Amino acid sequence: MPGNTFGRIFRITTWGESHGPAIGVVIDGVPPGLPVCPEQIQRELDRRRPGQSRLTTQRKESDSVQILSGVSEGQSLGTPISLLVENQDARPQDYDLMKKVYRPSHADMTYDFKYRRRSLSGGGRASARETIGRVAAGAIAQEWLRREFGVEIVAWVGKVHTLAAENVDPNTVDRNAVENSPVRCPIPEVSQQMIELIDQARKNRDSLGGVVEVVARGCPAGWGEPVFDKLDALLAHAFMSIPAAKGVEIGSGFSGTAMAGSEHNDHFFMKDGEVRTRTNRSGGIQGGISNGMPVFARVAFKPTSTINKEQPTVTSEGEEVVLAAKGRHDPCVLPRAVPIVEAMTAIVLMDLALQDIAQNGPRTGSLKPPQSE
Amino acid sequence: MPGNTFGRIFRITTWGESHGPAIGVVIDGVPPGLPVCPEQIQRELDRRRPGQSRLTTQRKESDSVQILSGVSEGQSLGTPISLLVENQDARPQDYDLMKKVYRPSHADMTYDFKYRRRSLSGGGRASARETIGRVAAGAIAQEWLRREFGVEIVAWVGKVHTLAAENVDPNTVDRNAVENSPVRCPIPEVSQQMIELIDQARKNRDSLGGVVEVVARGCPAGWGEPVFDKLDALLAHAFMSIPAAKGVEIGSGFSGTAMAGSEHNDHFFMKDGEVRTRTNRSGGIQGGISNGMPVFARVAFKPTSTINKEQPTVTSEGEEVVLAAKGRHDPCVLPRAVPIVEAMTAIVLMDLALQDIAQNGPRTGSLKPPQSE
Amino acid sequence: MPGNTFGRIFRITTWGESHGPAIGVVIDGVPPGLPVCPEQIQRELDRRRPGQSRLTTQRKESDSVQILSGVSEGQSLGTPISLLVENQDARPQDYDLMKKVYRPSHADMTYDFKYRRRSLSGGGRASARETIGRVAAGAIAQEWLRREFGVEIVAWVGKVHTLAAENVDPNTVDRNAVENSPVRCPIPEVSQQMIELIDQARKNRDSLGGVVEVVARGCPAGWGEPVFDKLDALLAHAFMSIPAAKGVEIGSGFSGTAMAGSEHNDHFFMKDGEVRTRTNRSGGIQGGISNGMPVFARVAFKPTSTINKEQPTVTSEGEEVVLAAKGRHDPCVLPRAVPIVEAMTAIVLMDLALQDIAQNGPRTGSLKPPQSE
Amino acid sequence: MPGNTFGRIFRITTWGESHGPAIGVVIDGVPPGLPVCPEQIQRELDRRRPGQSRLTTQRKESDSVQILSGVSEGQSLGTPISLLVENQDARPQDYDLMKKVYRPSHADMTYDFKYRRRSLSGGGRASARETIGRVAAGAIAQEWLRREFGVEIVAWVGKVHTLAAENVDPNTVDRNAVENSPVRCPIPEVSQQMIELIDQARKNRDSLGGVVEVVARGCPAGWGEPVFDKLDALLAHAFMSIPAAKGVEIGSGFSGTAMAGSEHNDHFFMKDGEVRTRTNRSGGIQGGISNGMPVFARVAFKPTSTINKEQPTVTSEGEEVVLAAKGRHDPCVLPRAVPIVEAMTAIVLMDLALQDIAQNGPRTGSLKPPQSE
Repeated sequence: MPGNTFGRIFRITTWGESHGPAIGVVIDGVPPGLPVCPEQIQRELDRRRPGQSRLTTQRKESDSVQILSGVSEGQSLGTPISLLVENQDARPQDYDLMKKVYRPSHADMTYDFKYRRRSLSGGGRASARETIGRVAAGAIAQEWLRREFGVEIVAWVGKVHTLAAENVDPNTVDRNAVENSPVRCPIPEVSQQMIELIDQARKNRDSLGGVVEVVARGCPAGWGEPVFDKLDALLAHAFMSIPAAKGVEIGSGFSGTAMAGSEHNDHFFMKDGEVRTRTNRSGGIQGGISNGMPVFARVAFKPTSTINKEQPTVTSEGEEVVLAAKGRHDPCVLPRAVPIVEAMTAIVLMDLALQDIAQNGPRTGSLKPPQSE
Repeated sequence: MPGNTFGRIFRITTWGESHGPAIGVVIDGVPPGLPVCPEQIQRELDRRRPGQSRLTTQRKESDSVQILSGVSEGQSLGTPISLLVENQDARPQDYDLMKKVYRPSHADMTYDFKYRRRSLSGGGRASARETIGRVAAGAIAQEWLRREFGVEIVAWVGKVHTLAAENVDPNTVDRNAVENSPVRCPIPEVSQQMIELIDQARKNRDSLGGVVEVVARGCPAGWGEPVFDKLDALLAHAFMSIPAAKGVEIGSGFSGTAMAGSEHNDHFFMKDGEVRTRTNRSGGIQGGISNGMPVFARVAFKPTSTINKEQPTVTSEGEEVVLAAKGRHDPCVLPRAVPIVEAMTAIVLMDLALQDIAQNGPRTGSLKPPQSE
Repeated sequence: MPGNTFGRIFRITTWGESHGPAIGVVIDGVPPGLPVCPEQIQRELDRRRPGQSRLTTQRKESDSVQILSGVSEGQSLGTPISLLVENQDARPQDYDLMKKVYRPSHADMTYDFKYRRRSLSGGGRASARETIGRVAAGAIAQEWLRREFGVEIVAWVGKVHTLAAENVDPNTVDRNAVENSPVRCPIPEVSQQMIELIDQARKNRDSLGGVVEVVARGCPAGWGEPVFDKLDALLAHAFMSIPAAKGVEIGSGFSGTAMAGSEHNDHFFMKDGEVRTRTNRSGGIQGGISNGMPVFARVAFKPTSTINKEQPTVTSEGEEVVLAAKGRHDPCVLPRAVPIVEAMTAIVLMDLALQDIAQNGPRTGSLKPPQSE
Repeated sequence: MPGNTFGRIFRITTWGESHGPAIGVVIDGVPPGLPVCPEQIQRELDRRRPGQSRLTTQRKESDSVQILSGVSEGQSLGTPISLLVENQDARPQDYDLMKKVYRPSHADMTYDFKYRRRSLSGGGRASARETIGRVAAGAIAQEWLRREFGVEIVAWVGKVHTLAAENVDPNTVDRNAVENSPVRCPIPEVSQQMIELIDQARKNRDSLGGVVEVVARGCPAGWGEPVFDKLDALLAHAFMSIPAAKGVEIGSGFSGTAMAGSEHNDHFFMKDGEVRTRTNRSGGIQGGISNGMPVFARVAFKPTSTINKEQPTVTSEGEEVVLAAKGRHDPCVLPRAVPIVEAMTAIVLMDLALQDIAQNGPRTGSLKPPQSE
């Protein structure tokens, strides 16, 4: 169904099952002449890749990307870019046990009810392997956003279970600080504690959830389409479509509901001839349109549903059974979710930027008031 | 831009400015033969209407709906249903002051930057009056969902500022209990306290935010399209596109991140030959597809940005000024947001139900395991 | 269904039944700041209007357009433009006879089978009145194309029955010459003969078909999206969606099949430093993309299916009957089809122009070879 | 750009350049449980393949299809089906000469102007190799249409240059008769003459055009979406998007314009309790919706633009030159266009069938009048 396609102008279509021969994406609408570098895409895929550390699933996949179309002499042609990654370490036999058993809180039951059949093994399309295509497309979108507008996107793990990294400043956090941490939390002490928490969960055959935070700095004012395709609405759509996501906040989010309007409003002021706000509870978005301040969002991920502990469940034949799942799974998806959240942010921003150009023409990053020009 | 259209098969397009001659919606994809009753649409619009009580804006609008097409002898024809509501109490003069002044945290600045012009007065498309079309379309979607599947959608105010209604049971809450409360909170004592809170904010020329909760009971298993058009992703998109929304949670949401996987997972069991889960932290959605349990979500609304208190801001000419906004505004949008959240829920569910029928054929509500049949 | 919407960025949604209260269109994606003048839209609607002359249906409709949104102080806001025309001379009683009788070659039977019901009277959505919205939207698109690129669109009646206007030069034909003819054929002698043919058909209670030809001059090279959304493919889609259309040709069309490649190919040459072709059998489109030469197409319209002669047919109850249709109908739709074909041409061009801008940036009309710059 | 995707529910996205590593398609929206057999897809690809006979290009490509996703144990999963064909006999060096030279009436110039760059060699996306994905998707659509509704699609070469096969009966022509002819004309004598014509053109280093005709038998009444997505409009879109197409006719097409309404109308009558028409000038489509009679269309293809004769042209640097194109090209695309036209017919029908099911529920093939039931 059309559900495998996202975006209007910058448009991606992902395909592939977790334990099939390959996974891929077709990326359409890329402006011609954009440098498309396999190493750069691979770098992002490596950040998403399983087996990076003991914190992630031990499935062995190099996730080497092949570029099959749309690029010539290192630049985009303007035609669809087709990318493919082979599945190398598929182990369908691990799933024999689970063919008929519905893993609790997983997609087994719902796929089975929806399609009256499902991929023979593994999560099929519901597996996090599907996000390979998103991350690859996001690498291209990030490159375009950086070159055209200087947009910089950084995500990080803001919380694991109840352990929060309180002091991350969205205005300054950089990707190096994030990447220096195996758990992708830029505060070293918190990072260390998170690692210990996840290690403990792994040993317990259990899993943990948490929160990824993301900022996009440098977006010009004007991106986002009222009424339904608001920037915040599309970000919410994009984030909630990531496996295991259960919540999205833009700017002040749920905590903003505890403030009065007079406390919550972001006051405008002039700085160097440009319009800014003193606070950023709006998360860089007002009326669904970017206002030039950093776009900020938070995404809640539930604890991984596949755990190796025994759990009561049922089979597709209606039998009540106890399952101790096999297979190789992340005790905590948060570290690997970071590049996925960045990718989805970039995909949304690029698509809305192109839509904005279509209707409103080229846009500079200037925040000078329109009437003053 | 395409941003004024939502849905693939059941598809709505809204139009109209807050202080223009009229507001409307074109609703496409309605199956033929559905009873479409003006009174029913009007009833929903009346729940959204301004001036219902002192808790809402005092703008006087009857919001009387006219059905201009797509209905004959009380039934849908299968062709587009065009609905129109005239703006009666537009007061553009109230906005003279604000023509050049950007209200903090409102859409004034971003529209001005995006389009280099904006509706002469009021919020234009960013006004909550735009949601008239959504509520009207939602009335039709709710009727279809009720008739075809017995789906029942109930939303309520779960929180105002820091005051929460803790004891609402999504499995049983009914719309009467909600409608009996002027603030649309089904717990009478909490409702009374919320009213007092809002009254106080109004007197302070301030505003309050809060949380709307919504449940859809009776959805069959199988609705929602992996990968990008998951049911939860489309709900997030739909809710976050409502003016003032800043956060969305599905099922356990952010609070679910504080649980281990072994605590969070919803265990399957058999009841009367059907598959159920003992808990519903999934919010009725697994892998982006409904699982037959109640679909449950929460939406955070920020405090109304337009307040009559003095606030520092800037003009479209780059001048720093102090603004005490005029105009008639809700001290708290939550009570009127309830029918909007219900409408968006219905619109998403109906569209995904039709998409599911297209690919997978008719679906009964049965939760019997597929292999057992 | 989505079938009532056309276009991706410049996107129109039409609604309304022939004998309902009103007919309308929502036009989305119009760049802000475009002058939108009611008189100009009305002028195009008047060219489409019934009752212009004895050559057209005698239904009396002023087709006065109301602009309900999206325009402020004579300029587009960038938000959806909603236009409405009231039906004034609806005569449902004329159709009582035909409620159950399927008019041959009309849409009665197919709507009835598709929806198991249909508009109580008249053609409903299948009526040519539906094209009001197209013509109104086309007026806006033509204004934009003229201002931004100097594009000029002219259509004319090239053939009625077997009588062809052979000598119309697409490079020079202008709208005045077309409008000076009641039948909209720019060659006065042929125009006169066409009028006589149509008059004769009217007296015979019969109807005639013919061919409308259209040229768009001034399109820059580069409009049209390979692979499926080629400029010629979208024109074919747009034209074939006009009621009574049965054929579409681009450039040499069917007659080009009688030439060898060496005869048919359009040779490039340089003129004033720009790339041109000596002939234009391509109709201004190569590989689905405009090449800077005039875009030229032809549309075949069948003879009006509703005639007042007796014809054998069946009823919705399966009874074989003889029908002499009532109602007021055009003996020949060609003259009124001219502004509709122009409108659809403009709508396609504007949408593809905006898509091109989105991906490839602003485009001047220059045909200078890219490497020479 | 979105131009590489076609369809709403049954939706295909093609990718790949003619001389890149591979060509492919992602097919979305396939109902689960459909048998998907590689041999069947391969059979259709073999009909499209180059090098079938001396009538086609001598490029050597086995066009072996790989199924990468969406199929398990021979049946569709309901998830996207990704198909890939490697390019084996790419000869970029053949195109060195033409890197800067615009082949007359080819897409070289327009791609260069649109994107300011193009695939280094060959036709890139404008090559007929792009249609591999269409034919593969069409094989799946044909299987579904055959199983679900008994729809049978047959196309044939109706004309080469001025030589027409007059006596083909759309009601009975079968694919065997077509496949028995190397030129895919089911009338043996005409077939032989066509072969001689094409041979002669090949020897002359020239090329020929012609007409492909197609019929779809067994479509139920009710497919096609008014207003813009009429069945005939989508067929016109689909056919005109095939490389080299210049014209489309539905039913009587252009020749129907030479008839009066009283001659042209298809009279309804009852046969075995079902509604039929005595003639089929409507081509099985009325008001944009199928009426249960055979859907019939004709597609004009221009003579291949790439010929090996000398022709005047220009370079991308604005130099006037003479070109005798190299490369391996079809002297006449008609025989290979036959499976492409069938594929596009099937893709349109399946998509509209699914859309119809979404809104109107399951449909049997019965043509019994609705009120009689």
